[in-house]
This record gives sequence, structure tokens and C-alpha cells, in this order.
Amino acid sequence: MTVPQPRLQHLQCLTLKLGLPADAPIAWELLDRALTHPSASCVNYQQLEFLGDSVLRLAASELLQEMYPDGTVGEFAALRSILVSDRVLAELADGLGLERYLLMSTGAAGDPAGRRSRLADAFEAVLGALYASTHSFDLVRPWLDPLLVPRADDIRRDPALYNYKDALQEWTQAQHKSLPEYRVRAAKVATDPSSRFTAEVWFRGNCLGIGTGPSKKAAEQAAAKAAYTTAVVADTQSSGAERPDTQHS
Amino acid sequence: MTVPQPRLQHLQCLTLKLGLPADAPIAWELLDRALTHPSASCVNYQQLEFLGDSVLRLAASELLQEMYPDGTVGEFAALRSILVSDRVLAELADGLGLERYLLMSTGAAGDPAGRRSRLADAFEAVLGALYASTHSFDLVRPWLDPLLVPRADDIRRDPALYNYKDALQEWTQAQHKSLPEYRVRAAKVATDPSSRFTAEVWFRGNCLGIGTGPSKKAAEQAAAKAAYTTAVVADTQSSGAERPDTQHS
Repeated sequence: MTVPQPRLQHLQCLTLKLGLPADAPIAWELLDRALTHPSASCVNYQQLEFLGDSVLRLAASELLQEMYPDGTVGEFAALRSILVSDRVLAELADGLGLERYLLMSTGAAGDPAGRRSRLADAFEAVLGALYASTHSFDLVRPWLDPLLVPRADDIRRDPALYNYKDALQEWTQAQHKSLPEYRVRAAKVATDPSSRFTAEVWFRGNCLGIGTGPSKKAAEQAAAKAAYTTAVVADTQSSGAERPDTQHS
Repeated sequence: MTVPQPRLQHLQCLTLKLGLPADAPIAWELLDRALTHPSASCVNYQQLEFLGDSVLRLAASELLQEMYPDGTVGEFAALRSILVSDRVLAELADGLGLERYLLMSTGAAGDPAGRRSRLADAFEAVLGALYASTHSFDLVRPWLDPLLVPRADDIRRDPALYNYKDALQEWTQAQHKSLPEYRVRAAKVATDPSSRFTAEVWFRGNCLGIGTGPSKKAAEQAAAKAAYTTAVVADTQSSGAERPDTQHS
């Protein structure tokens, strides 16, 4: 199955935008599939997204260890969870204008709620297609690293820019293979709307953090932030024989 | 930092056992570290295990897609979760006699409860060290694939050999990014001991499966098995335009 000429030219524009050379050994059929939403064809990006998810995790793991040779595993896990989140991937996909290349049905295109996850999925699928083209990172890391490096630095400087619940969950899974539990209650008496909800985050029988917010979600994020910045940072520093110089913002 | 001669010779025996050529470009210092438990040194396998976990996931993802070109993403995710479980990795590590190469304190060595996870961790760390030696799978897949292929076939033929809770969780996370919930109750009246506990597994407001067993754990596994073989297999087959020929055992 070959890729029709107009589509091929369109995909070539994208790879030039990624900075890949015009004669790069790209499997165009795979790249075409990576940018085909399930609503457009039964031959779509799902398999490549599955592969690309692993490609991204390995690329991010290697990159983070190269960037922060003194980092701890807990810190890497938390950073990576944010880097590979749908939110960040959708932002990176937006920066590349990936949506213009994505084939989908008009119905799917008209669903704004699914936009973030379909951009993230397509981004991972593109990683999968380029990895599978050479069975190496040769067509991936040259353009992926420059996108991830400033993000990783931003997150490390100020994790509050991102999602503490994801970061905390990644840490508890990496360290203890289980998940934290959130308990939320609404204030029973009239109160400042900004602290209408109070959330506690529990893990292995301990309350790791408490937070308040105007919504359940916001209160959970605040609790996760408290837990992350105490428990995770404390853990990171106590295992710090290898890294006495590490600092968290 | 160089590796002392007797340790180096010992590690060379291991790589020959893996079938790697005597002149393979192995970073011996990394392999030494991959086989050093945290109880033995602050320079230990933790960082390499983090990397190796991603190396393993990508190698397994690629291998499964090569082995079963008609498989669905749900099926791959479930198979991979079992392949990369501590149980399977510890068995593979045992098959290689990895424990004989693992430096650790006498105290840690005398802790049988931690044996499975430390073997699995060391196995992943070895993958990390060999991957990092060349930044490629050249020193990994030649010996890893032959270990994983028969396992993957076994699991696919009879997933009951393995852990249905893990498989179900991997599937719900891959498909819906959330976890199933188990509700267990003990029989209130005298009953056959083999069905003393009943577990239900709930996911997104639906009970996916019910199971009984002599312990809470066994009941949960039975419920997960019921859920896996109905919900996951049904999902796999309904998205089967690409794979009308796929069968589950």
C-alpha cells in the first residue's frame, strides 16, 4: 500500500518541519497511519500509539538522566509523568501544528472535548512510526530532545505549573507500586468560596497532605502538591548520599 | 572507576551466558552497578533499573507487535503487563542465575520476602546497563527475545497461569486511564471453604465480574479473571475489523 502523492507531499512538509533531512529513511506508510484517527479508517494510529508510548518513555528516561545526572529515581519518575502527560503532549503537538496532518471524520473533528487526547495520541503515534522506520531513535531524538529539554527545566523549576496528582501518583507507583487515595469534603458552614472543599491525600495509612480549593479537583491538586513537596522531596533528599547538591524549587 | 579484575571476570561469565560475544562493547562499570543492591553501596542499581524498566517496555511492545501482527492494543497491553511483572522477571533472572552476581549486604540477602522484587529489579537494571552501553538494543534483544517469546506464547494460550488482576489493571489503564475497584465480602453463613470470599470488580459504574475463593486475594483474582475474559476479550473482538481471525484461549 503506497501513500497517495498529495498526502505524501503533505507528510514530507511535516518531517522537514521536524528538521529531518529530505532523504531520511522514513516509512511513509507508517507515518500516514500515525496521522489517521480511528474515525477515519480501521487502519489507524492505535497500534503505533501503543509503540510510541514506550518510545517516548524510554527517550524521556534517557534524556532526564542525561540532563540531571544527580537526580533521584523518584524525581525522574515524577518529571517523566508530567512530560508524557496528555496535556504536555497535546501542547507539543499543537506547536508542530499536527492537527493539520491528522485525518479524521468530520464528527470526530467537531468534538472539542476529545481534542487533547487525540493530539497526544497522534503525537505518540508519530514517535512510534519514526522509531519503527529505523528501529532506533535516529529519527526521534534529534527533534524530540529540543522540545522536551525546556519543558523538563520548567517543570523542575516550578512543578506547580503542572499536575501534582499525576506526579504524586507516578512517585507512589514507582516507589511502592500502589496508588494514593483522596478524601474530599465540602465545608458545612458558609466559608470563603476559594476554600469550599478540603481534600486529604492518604497513602499506606498516612495522611501525606491536606489542601483546599473552590472545587473538588482544585482541593485534590492542592493536597497532592502538599504531599509531593513534603513526602517526595523528603524522600529524595534522604536518599541523597549520591546527590547532596540537588535542590527543589 | 574501573571494575576490579575478579568481579570483571565474573561479569564476563554472565555476558557469555547471555550469548553476547566476548568483544561486545559492554560498559562494565554500568553492568557492575546494575548488579549492586542498594544495601551494598550508594552507587547501586536504582538509576539503571529506572532506565531498564523503559527499555523492557519498549522491547516487549515491539516484540509483541512483531509476534502477533493481528493483535489489538488491549491485548498487547495485557500481555505486556504480565511479561514485565516482578513474577515473570524474577523467574527469568532465576533462570540466568542472576542472584550469584548480585552484590548485597548479608542482611538483605537473608530477607526472603524481598527476593522476588530484588531479582526483578536487578534484571531490569541489567537491561538498562546493556542498553546504555550502546544506546541501542544491540546487546539486549538478541538474548531477551528468546526468553520472552515462549513466555508470551504461554500467557496468550492460558492467561490463567498468570495474574489476572495485573492484566485487567493494565487494560483499564490503557483504555480509560483509571483503575478497577474490588469489593470483597466474607460469607456470613457456614459455606464451602473454597468459596468463603466473594469479590466483585467494578469499573466506571459497572460490575465487570464476580469471583469466589478461599481467601480475599483468590476471590479478587477470580473476579478479575471473569472480567478479563468477558470485558477485555469482548472489547478486543468488537474492535476486530483488523483482526477477524484472533482467538483467545
